[in-house]
Amino acid sequence: MPQQDRAVATREAILHAAAEEFDRLGYERTSLTAVLARAGLTKGAFYFHFSSKEAVADALVERQGETWARMRESWRERGADPLSALCGMFAESADRMSADVVLRAGVRLNADREAGCPGVPGTHVLWEKLVAGYLFEAAERGDLRAGVDPESVARTLCSAALGSRLISSATTACADFPQRIREVLGHVLPCVASGDWELPGSQTASEPA
Amino acid sequence: MPQQDRAVATREAILHAAAEEFDRLGYERTSLTAVLARAGLTKGAFYFHFSSKEAVADALVERQGETWARMRESWRERGADPLSALCGMFAESADRMSADVVLRAGVRLNADREAGCPGVPGTHVLWEKLVAGYLFEAAERGDLRAGVDPESVARTLCSAALGSRLISSATTACADFPQRIREVLGHVLPCVASGDWELPGSQTASEPA
Repeated sequence: MPQQDRAVATREAILHAAAEEFDRLGYERTSLTAVLARAGLTKGAFYFHFSSKEAVADALVERQGETWARMRESWRERGADPLSALCGMFAESADRMSADVVLRAGVRLNADREAGCPGVPGTHVLWEKLVAGYLFEAAERGDLRAGVDPESVARTLCSAALGSRLISSATTACADFPQRIREVLGHVLPCVASGDWELPGSQTASEPA
Repeated sequence: MPQQDRAVATREAILHAAAEEFDRLGYERTSLTAVLARAGLTKGAFYFHFSSKEAVADALVERQGETWARMRESWRERGADPLSALCGMFAESADRMSADVVLRAGVRLNADREAGCPGVPGTHVLWEKLVAGYLFEAAERGDLRAGVDPESVARTLCSAALGSRLISSATTACADFPQRIREVLGHVLPCVASGDWELPGSQTASEPA
């Protein structure tokens, strides 16, 4: 392997090993020693790539932010109707969280950091605004029932997504997060969408594995 | 004030002052010094009632457990139809959390303790079972639409309640928790209840204050 590729692979191995620990234990209880043992690396190799445990956490938080930004952008470009795009984003988020420990760790670290800064508008504010935006668009197209308040529905969907993630993370390392999110969509969307709109097939609740 | 009444009042003052700090800062960042300053008490007065900061936290966790047990029992005895009892419990929980910092602190401390013990079934498991029980009863009475899965609805309602509490706690010290919970009930229940059942009036979403 050329030297540069090897350096990239080592950096990824560190991020992955750290993510496994952060995801399970959180920031405080994760030790650098355990991360190195998991990655099979020396301290020297580690410090070539990162200056501290905090620097690895920074990289994971940054990466999850980029992942969500790309996902939002991609749904924006896809040209689906707004309710379908909303369902698609929720389902894709849960699928990714369930499949990718690096993403999961970044989300947990980011949430824990935000929890330490009361008063600072957190990621949930961003998501509530994003979701409300899609719902306002849906209302304009006549895809919401009369009298449905897009901001209120956004609050319910984002609350349910946050709660689903936390319970799923605590009980199954997010393995059942995709199912739980699809259940949320299935219990809320038909209640607020006008009669003509249908839940996309791939977003209906799948059977528990 | 008789001596015994004064002792009870001092103990309550300590619990209240500690709750104010725990609710805002969590267990780790709360200092006994700040609690004493808030309560206007000496260390001597404190140690007459509690052996440590942890002992105060224990008392708050225990008290919230008793509060919820009493509330569940009271709804069980009230003889409402199961969906109305469910809505009533959710709304009452949010009203109490919003009004009572002692309860709110106990719930936060309890959740933080549970988060430190992965693998131990937490309070959310108890609530999901309780809610599913009410929904199974509702299904038996024909109050749920055909094909609605009580356990799936219970997961969605409990996830939404947890997420609502966390977002509301982080942004408004639970002031908007009652509104958020009523929004959740209003967006989910009409979707799963059969045509005959109606959301009780007191559980409909009130206007933001």
